[in-house]
Amino acid sequence: MGIKMSVALSLLVATNMVFANSLIDEAKKAGLKPIPKDKEELNKLIDNPKNKLTPEKIELGKKLYFEPRLSKSALISCNTCHNLATGGDDNVPVATGHKWRQNPHHLNSPTVFNAVFNEKQFWDGRSPDLEDQATGPIQADVEMAMHKDMAVKVVESIPEYKEAFNKVFPNEKITIETIGKAIGAFERTLVTPSRYDDFLNGDENALTKEEQEGLKTFISVGCASCHSGVGLGGGMQPFPAVKPYKYANIGDFKGDKNGMVKTPTLRNIAETAPYFHNGAVWDLKEAIKIMGETQLGKELSDKEVASIETFLKALTGKKPKVEYPILPNSTKDTPKPDLD
Amino acid sequence: MGIKMSVALSLLVATNMVFANSLIDEAKKAGLKPIPKDKEELNKLIDNPKNKLTPEKIELGKKLYFEPRLSKSALISCNTCHNLATGGDDNVPVATGHKWRQNPHHLNSPTVFNAVFNEKQFWDGRSPDLEDQATGPIQADVEMAMHKDMAVKVVESIPEYKEAFNKVFPNEKITIETIGKAIGAFERTLVTPSRYDDFLNGDENALTKEEQEGLKTFISVGCASCHSGVGLGGGMQPFPAVKPYKYANIGDFKGDKNGMVKTPTLRNIAETAPYFHNGAVWDLKEAIKIMGETQLGKELSDKEVASIETFLKALTGKKPKVEYPILPNSTKDTPKPDLD
Repeated sequence: MGIKMSVALSLLVATNMVFANSLIDEAKKAGLKPIPKDKEELNKLIDNPKNKLTPEKIELGKKLYFEPRLSKSALISCNTCHNLATGGDDNVPVATGHKWRQNPHHLNSPTVFNAVFNEKQFWDGRSPDLEDQATGPIQADVEMAMHKDMAVKVVESIPEYKEAFNKVFPNEKITIETIGKAIGAFERTLVTPSRYDDFLNGDENALTKEEQEGLKTFISVGCASCHSGVGLGGGMQPFPAVKPYKYANIGDFKGDKNGMVKTPTLRNIAETAPYFHNGAVWDLKEAIKIMGETQLGKELSDKEVASIETFLKALTGKKPKVEYPILPNSTKDTPKPDLD
Repeated sequence: MGIKMSVALSLLVATNMVFANSLIDEAKKAGLKPIPKDKEELNKLIDNPKNKLTPEKIELGKKLYFEPRLSKSALISCNTCHNLATGGDDNVPVATGHKWRQNPHHLNSPTVFNAVFNEKQFWDGRSPDLEDQATGPIQADVEMAMHKDMAVKVVESIPEYKEAFNKVFPNEKITIETIGKAIGAFERTLVTPSRYDDFLNGDENALTKEEQEGLKTFISVGCASCHSGVGLGGGMQPFPAVKPYKYANIGDFKGDKNGMVKTPTLRNIAETAPYFHNGAVWDLKEAIKIMGETQLGKELSDKEVASIETFLKALTGKKPKVEYPILPNSTKDTPKPDLD
C-alpha cells in the first residue's frame, strides 16, 4: 500500500469514528439510551422497588407465565399471546383468547420483550407496571377468562406452587396480586440487547454505515421525539397527532380519555408485525411511512423510509435463554378446566 | 446391635433383594420392559430406519413442534395440545383447536411423552408412526386447520427453515411429509425414564416396598396383559373387552373397524388426567377400577386399586430439558394468519 493511500485510509477510518462518535452523542441528546452493558446497572434499571427481583421469584414467575391452568380453559397462558418464540407476541392482528373471542376494540398484543422499559402498560396506559398488567389478561373474558379467586385456587391446590409462594412472598397471602408480582418479576428479565446497544455503549463498529445513517435519519426526521429512552418508546403520546390514521376504522380504540396512546417499543420491531394498536399494517416500510404522516406530518421519501427501516432492523436483540418449564402436577383440589 | 438382630436384619435385606429380584424376573416375563439405561441401546430403540435421527433434524423438529405458524391461525402448535410443560398433553377432556372447535368424537389428546414406544398412533391406531401422525393434526380442521400446501409455503418462505430442510433432507422437496419427519424425529427423543426403569434395570431399591407390591398386583390381576412393553401400552386391544364402559355415551368413538383401541401408555399417568379416549375420568383410582371391570371383568378391591395406583405413580419420569426455541422470522412471503 502506498503511503498516500494508507494516509487516506486512516483519515477515512478516523472520519468514520468521528461520525460514529458524534452520532452516539447526537442519539443520546435525542433521548435514546442503551440497555446497560453492566449487569448491576441493568439490574437496577429493571428492578421494581415494590417487587424486588430474586432468582426464586423469577423462576416462579416463569412457571406462571407458561401456566395454562391460570386460564378458565386451562389452554391459554401469558405465553399464548406473548410468545417468547415469536418476538414476544402472537403475530396476529387481533388478540384472540377464550372461546376464540377477539379483543372487542381490535387491539393487537404488544411484545413482552423489553416491556419493562415502558412507562405504563396497555395501549391506553391504564396500568402502571408489569406486576399490575399481568393480572389483567388472566381475568379478561376475551383473554384467559379466569376469575381471580379461581386463579388463586389453582395455585393453592398445587403444593409446589404453595411452597414457592410461601418462600417468595413470606407473610403474604396468595392473591391475584402476588401472582401478578411473580409474573412481572419474570417479565422484567425479558430484555434483548442488540448491536444498537453495543453502539450506544461505545462500540462504533457495532452498527454498519447504513444502519448509522438510518439512525441519523431516525433522529433528524423526528422519530426519536416519541420513540426514545431505553425502550425506544413506552411513553404516552397523542395518536394520531397531526394527520388522520388511515386504518382508524379497524376497531374503535381511541386511546385514554385524553386520546393518548402508548408508544410501542421499536426493539425487535422486525419480528412483531402486524403493526399499530389495531394490527392493521404488516409491512414495516408502510408503518414507517404512516408514522411520518400521522405523527410528524411529513411525507417521508422512499430513501428516508428505507434508511430508517435499515436502522430498525438492527434493533432485533438477543433473546434470553428460557428453559421450557415442567409445571407441577394438578391435585384433586385443582379446579377443573372449563372450556365454555 | 446384637449379633442376633444383625443376622435378622441381614436376612430381611436378603429376603427383600430376593423378592425384588424375582419381581424383576416376573415383570419381564409379563412383558414389561425398561427404557434402556445404555444410551446407544436407547438410541437404537427410538430410531426409525426410514427417518434416521440426527441432531440437526431433532433441532429442526423441535422448532416445528413449537411453530404456531403451521396452523391456519398462527396461534396453535403441536405443543398446544401436547404441552411438554404439563405431562405432554393438554389436561382437558376433549382436544380443542382452531376456532375453539372440539374433536367431533370427543377424543382426548394423548401424551407425546414416550409416544415413540406406541406400536401405532392415534386412538384408532390408523397411523404407523410419529412421522406420519404429526401430519394429521396440522391438517385437521378441528385442530390446526392448515392446508398442507400452506404449511409448506410457510416453511419455504422462511430462509432459516429452508436452509435447515436442505441440510437435513438433502435432495428432498419440502413437503408435509418432510415436515412430519422432522417433528417425528424430535418427538422420538421425548422419553422419560423413571425409578421404575431403574428397578427393571436391576436397582432393587429404586422402587419402595409399596411400589413393588403395587407392581406385583398390577401383574397378578392382569393389567400387564395390555399395558406391557417399554411403553406399558401402545398396542391395539378391544375396548371395552369384557363389560361395558360406563362413560361410553360421551362422544361416539368405537375404535377401529374391528373395535380395537390403542392402549394408552401408563408412563406419567399421574400427570395426564383426565383418562380414557373420551377424557371422562379425572380420578386415577376410578380409572383403575373401571379398567378392572371393562377389560378384565374383575371387581378390584380398594386395596388392590390403591396398591396399583401407588405403583403407577412411580411411572412419573424425568422429562428431557428443552430450551424454548426462538423461531425464525416471517418474511413478506409468509402466508398471513387466518383466524376464520
